[in-house]
Amino acid sequence: MTNRPADKDPRDGKEAQFAGMRCVALCGGVGGAKLAVGLDALLVPENLTIITNTGDDFVHLGLHISPDLDTVMYSLAGLANPDTGWGRAGESWRFMSALRALGGEDWFQLGDLDLATHIERSRRLAAGESLSAVTRDLGARLGVAPALVPMSDAPVRTIVDTPDGALAFQHYFVRDKCAPAVTGFRFAGAETAQPAPGALAALGDPALDAIIICPSNPFVSIDPILAVPGMREAIAAAPAPVIAVSPIVGGQAIKGPTAKMMRELGVPGDALAIADHYAGLLDGFVLDATDQPLARQIRDRELQCLVSDTLMTGYEEKLALARAVLQFVQQMQQKAT
Amino acid sequence: MTNRPADKDPRDGKEAQFAGMRCVALCGGVGGAKLAVGLDALLVPENLTIITNTGDDFVHLGLHISPDLDTVMYSLAGLANPDTGWGRAGESWRFMSALRALGGEDWFQLGDLDLATHIERSRRLAAGESLSAVTRDLGARLGVAPALVPMSDAPVRTIVDTPDGALAFQHYFVRDKCAPAVTGFRFAGAETAQPAPGALAALGDPALDAIIICPSNPFVSIDPILAVPGMREAIAAAPAPVIAVSPIVGGQAIKGPTAKMMRELGVPGDALAIADHYAGLLDGFVLDATDQPLARQIRDRELQCLVSDTLMTGYEEKLALARAVLQFVQQMQQKAT
Repeated sequence: MTNRPADKDPRDGKEAQFAGMRCVALCGGVGGAKLAVGLDALLVPENLTIITNTGDDFVHLGLHISPDLDTVMYSLAGLANPDTGWGRAGESWRFMSALRALGGEDWFQLGDLDLATHIERSRRLAAGESLSAVTRDLGARLGVAPALVPMSDAPVRTIVDTPDGALAFQHYFVRDKCAPAVTGFRFAGAETAQPAPGALAALGDPALDAIIICPSNPFVSIDPILAVPGMREAIAAAPAPVIAVSPIVGGQAIKGPTAKMMRELGVPGDALAIADHYAGLLDGFVLDATDQPLARQIRDRELQCLVSDTLMTGYEEKLALARAVLQFVQQMQQKAT
Repeated sequence: MTNRPADKDPRDGKEAQFAGMRCVALCGGVGGAKLAVGLDALLVPENLTIITNTGDDFVHLGLHISPDLDTVMYSLAGLANPDTGWGRAGESWRFMSALRALGGEDWFQLGDLDLATHIERSRRLAAGESLSAVTRDLGARLGVAPALVPMSDAPVRTIVDTPDGALAFQHYFVRDKCAPAVTGFRFAGAETAQPAPGALAALGDPALDAIIICPSNPFVSIDPILAVPGMREAIAAAPAPVIAVSPIVGGQAIKGPTAKMMRELGVPGDALAIADHYAGLLDGFVLDATDQPLARQIRDRELQCLVSDTLMTGYEEKLALARAVLQFVQQMQQKAT
C-alpha cells in the first residue's frame, strides 16, 4: 500500500509560492477528484479541506457505498484506477463473478479491493460511528493527508426526476446508464441534514484564501452539497473568494452526463451556463482555453475570469491546473488590496 | 462454475443397490461434509436430507456467516477447498489484504469468492427471507442436489464456557484457535428455536431407512442440532435406525478439537465415549478399523457395530465409507425382519 500517487511529483509538489495558502474545495467524483489531487500536491495538508458530495451514496447489497468519497479518497491516496475514473487500480473481480453465479445483483461493480472499503465503512457506521469519522480514519489508513469531509453525516440522497418517475441516483447513473431524460433533481433528507463537522468552520475560516468549486457536475455533485442547510449560506458569507472551474469544455462534459443533463433541462450547454448556475456565489470563474470567446461574457457578469487548460489528462495537467487556479486566487487578492 | 466435484465418480456414483434408500444425515463441517459427499454420490437427491449445524453461525463485519452450511454446500457442489476443510477451492484473498490495510478485523479469513455467499445471504436475510430458503436457493445455484437444511431458521449460538468466562464459538474456535480449556457448552436461543422447515418431516418419514450422525464433533456440531426443541425427540421417535459414525479414531480427532474437548471435559477420549454421548438415540455405531478392540464394548451396549475405514482421505474413501454405512443399514434391516 502506497500513500503517494505513483506519478506524484518527487519534490513532493509543495511550492514555496503556495506555502501559506489555505483552501476549501467542493467536489464530486472524477473531475473534482483530479483537481483535488493537484491541490493536494501544492498545498500543505493542514491548509486543504475537501468537502465531498455524498448525494450519490446508497445502500447496495447491505453495504453503505459512497462513490464520490471513495473516488476522492483513492485519488488522493494514489490508488485510483486512472482508466475508469472510479474504483481502485489493479482491481480484481472475483467477488462479482461469484456473486453472479449465486444470482446476485451485478449491475453495480464492486471490486475485491474496493469491497474492503464498503464493508469496513458499513461495519463502523452500524456500530454508531459517523460517516465523517469513518472517512477520516479510512483516509488516514490509506495515506490521505488533507481533510476529506463528507458534506453531511446525515443521509442526503439525490433523486433524479424523469418523465417516467423518480429514480434513485445510482439507478439512474449506473444501472440505467444516464439514459432517462432528466426533468429535475431533489435531495431527499437535505432539509434536516447538517454540514459534517469541520465543513462550516473551514468555510468561515478568516484565514481562508479561496473556496474552489471543482469541475464536477453542478446538478448532482455540487448542488447536493449546496442543498445541505447552512452550506450555501456559509459559502456566500465567506470572506474568501469563491472560484468555480468549469466542467464543460467546448460545450461538452469531459466525462459524465453534465452536457446531456443541461440539454434536457433546457439550459444552454456551455460554460457560461455553469457560471450562471452558481450565480450569487462566485467571485471568479475558470474557463478552458477552448472557451476563450466566452471570457468577455463571464467578465460582463462581474466575475474574474481565468482562461486555462482544464483537461486534466495526466498528473502534470492536474498540477498545472491547480497551480493556475491558486495563482488566479493570488492575483484576485492583489487586485483587491 | 461446476456442479460436480472434480473427483466425482464418472458413473455418477448412483448404485442400483442403494437406489431406493432414503436417509437423513446430521452434520457439522469438515468430517460430516465428507460423509455427506459420499452419501450424495450414492443416493438419489430426493432421498437425502442433510440437516446441518448452524450453532457456529455468527455475524462478522455485518455479514451473516454460516461456516458449517457453507462447508457442506461447497463440498456438495464440488467447490470446497480440499486442503483447508473450509472455504472454496482456488480462493483469493485480495479483499482480506485491503481490509487489513484499512485496519479492519482480520482474524476470520474471508476469501473473495466466499464473500459473495456471505453478502448475498446477508442481503436476503435482511430482506426477510429465511435461512433455509436462502440455503436452498444458493445451493441450487451451485448445483447442490440433495436437501441441505439448516437445523433452524432461528439463531442458535454455541457458547463455549471456559474458566475465564464464556466465549462466542468463532472467538473460541478461530480467533483463539481452541486454546482455552472448555468446561461446557450452551446453545443460546435454542429454547425458543424451531427445527427448520422439512427437518422434522424428513426425520419422521415412515419410508426413511436411516438417520446417520456424521463423524462431526458431538459437542459443537451435533449437540446444537439436538438442542433445537423437537429434534432429539424426533430422532428418538423415528422408525428409522440411528447410526453414528465416530469422529474419534485411535483416541484422536481426525481434525479439530474433539479429543482436546473430551480431555478437558473429563470424558474418556475414545470412540466408546462418543457412543455413550449419544446414549438413548443410537441403534448402530461405526468404528474405525483402528478401534476394532472397542467393538465388543459397543455391542455390549446393545448397539449394532460396524468396523470400517473411516478416514476419508480422498473421494474414493468418502464413497467407500458411505457405501459401507448404507450396507450396514441394509444388514440391520435384514436382521430386523
